[in-house]
Amino acid sequence: MTCVDEYFMDKALELSKKGIGFVNPNPIVGALIVKDGDIIGSGYHEAYGKAHAEINAFNSVKDNVEGATMYITLEPCSHYGKNAPCVNEIIRRKIKRVVIAMKDPNPLVSGKGIELLLKNNIDVKVGVLEEEAEKNNEIFIKYIKTKKPFCILKAGMSLDGKIATYSGESKWITSDESRKYSHKLRNKVSGILVGINTVLKDDPILNIRIEDGVYKNPTRIVLDSHGKIPLKSKLLTTLDIANTMVVVTEKAAKDKIKNIENTGAEVIVSPLKEGKVDLNFLVDELGKRKIDSILIEGGGEVNFSFLKEDLVDKAIFFIAPKIIGGASAKTPVEGRGIGLLKDVPQLKNIDTFKLGKDLVVEGYL
Amino acid sequence: MTCVDEYFMDKALELSKKGIGFVNPNPIVGALIVKDGDIIGSGYHEAYGKAHAEINAFNSVKDNVEGATMYITLEPCSHYGKNAPCVNEIIRRKIKRVVIAMKDPNPLVSGKGIELLLKNNIDVKVGVLEEEAEKNNEIFIKYIKTKKPFCILKAGMSLDGKIATYSGESKWITSDESRKYSHKLRNKVSGILVGINTVLKDDPILNIRIEDGVYKNPTRIVLDSHGKIPLKSKLLTTLDIANTMVVVTEKAAKDKIKNIENTGAEVIVSPLKEGKVDLNFLVDELGKRKIDSILIEGGGEVNFSFLKEDLVDKAIFFIAPKIIGGASAKTPVEGRGIGLLKDVPQLKNIDTFKLGKDLVVEGYL
Repeated sequence: MTCVDEYFMDKALELSKKGIGFVNPNPIVGALIVKDGDIIGSGYHEAYGKAHAEINAFNSVKDNVEGATMYITLEPCSHYGKNAPCVNEIIRRKIKRVVIAMKDPNPLVSGKGIELLLKNNIDVKVGVLEEEAEKNNEIFIKYIKTKKPFCILKAGMSLDGKIATYSGESKWITSDESRKYSHKLRNKVSGILVGINTVLKDDPILNIRIEDGVYKNPTRIVLDSHGKIPLKSKLLTTLDIANTMVVVTEKAAKDKIKNIENTGAEVIVSPLKEGKVDLNFLVDELGKRKIDSILIEGGGEVNFSFLKEDLVDKAIFFIAPKIIGGASAKTPVEGRGIGLLKDVPQLKNIDTFKLGKDLVVEGYL
Repeated sequence: MTCVDEYFMDKALELSKKGIGFVNPNPIVGALIVKDGDIIGSGYHEAYGKAHAEINAFNSVKDNVEGATMYITLEPCSHYGKNAPCVNEIIRRKIKRVVIAMKDPNPLVSGKGIELLLKNNIDVKVGVLEEEAEKNNEIFIKYIKTKKPFCILKAGMSLDGKIATYSGESKWITSDESRKYSHKLRNKVSGILVGINTVLKDDPILNIRIEDGVYKNPTRIVLDSHGKIPLKSKLLTTLDIANTMVVVTEKAAKDKIKNIENTGAEVIVSPLKEGKVDLNFLVDELGKRKIDSILIEGGGEVNFSFLKEDLVDKAIFFIAPKIIGGASAKTPVEGRGIGLLKDVPQLKNIDTFKLGKDLVVEGYL
């Protein structure tokens, strides 16, 4: 049976990915209904606030599903949220067996859906392709447990660790393929974060640019202690395509804050920490605003600030096989740095793969 | 037949590697004698000045080799050098067929051995596992064609491109496995090159430290414009284990040069180029001294100097999955750097693999 369960769960996991970019801060979920070895129904959680995967799967079937097996990538809910509990519907439809990839990570409800299924004499198997399911929903898992965003640090650099030449040229060090992958990363998160220097230097728009498909642009977040962001910057003049949050400190003049707010952008005033934005305060604030994840696309200063506060969950480095050199050329992580090797953060569960000519290294902190 | 030829050539190539570290500036060569599908004799070029692989293979057989096939990783020689031509011996022993991985890269003799075999009605097949053979002898190929050493740039760094913390700690960023591999690299070359700053900071011995086997330490080469090397440094007090060459310029005082020479080390006086050692002059001088290859283990300044002069043939980066950070932390390639991305050197024929926790990226310039 193992192979069969893994076969269908793999399909359910693939299906769940269609929700990427639309469901945050909800999990992505896929569900299949299988009878006599045939998939007779399928569904996924399509968007935040919309029907759960299980309900979409039931709605896709005209025939009777009594006695069928259901494959769900996440434990079905047993509580009333935006929708009626899926467990009730599974019981009502007389599903015989439910295979679940992973338990609900929310400590308040974890296991309760499974318990209810068992009480109603439904066979339940939990943990099929659990690791993949957990990786797919790493953002949701972090957010539901901590109410803080899952923070991904992203950097593109040369083989000798430079993100620009000494003269400041940085477009483009990495390959087309890496940049496409970066845009797919943007699609997975609720927020993209940069420092004010990036805004002043590049005036980026920080939207998702992928040729095919429909996407929802993440909120743009700028660390800007003094409120220096130009009112004509793209981030403040393209609020129709995505929100922008400007994070200032008390160093920012009131009228500057007012002017920024008048563009329609949100201003978050952070307490000072070592003369800068207090990042721990910030991630709490972002969590309150349902920002379940951020992609940190800062320069070396911003990147180090997040690392120093131990706020980075995942790091993704794109390494182009070229050598730029330069004692003054910028590197992906700067700031003061770590002084002793014994204190240096190590990446775990590392995955490496090629993307065009580039090498990608992903890992967890 | 193809598969059979590749099978035996693969064995001959493996055998040839036993010569690594002992034959420079000669090529590594392996030879097998095969009769009725059995290997009846084998040999390899064991050390510079010693018998060629073919002769060792003949000497390993007691039986008659008439009618046998010979697999040789390099075209047999047809000229009188330190030994009588191997081609003569192949003809005399009545070998029926000779399979060769690659032609002799020396333009003066390339193809002459094959020609002579064909003239004596011996079947010849050339090009079996040619790519592997060429890679194995990349040092020899460069040296025989140019009389200049094959230059390998080696660096060990963190994922964010640092070779030390801001406070200067660098031991050890990379894993045990990477360091063992580095010592094997040292064993492949005739020279190890560092800058004077490395000597002043670390006082390294730059020998080969591998637990098993017998090794021949490469010549240590120090770039030291002013002749600052301490007379009590390990490089000048361990001349019993390997030669040391100190490369100075006219900026070095005559008495300093004299003192260095008195230790038994060789001093090379280079003309000045932009106030430093002229590296093009140096590689010519090293070539004249039969240094067919150097491993550049310099810091960022030395590494960039070689890259700028387009003298690097191969680069090997060991990347440890950790993040050190620091705007002032040293990086593997510094100096002025390249200003424009269009001028940046790109690596070709890239090979990447894991070594312990580290990632290794090797490529050619």
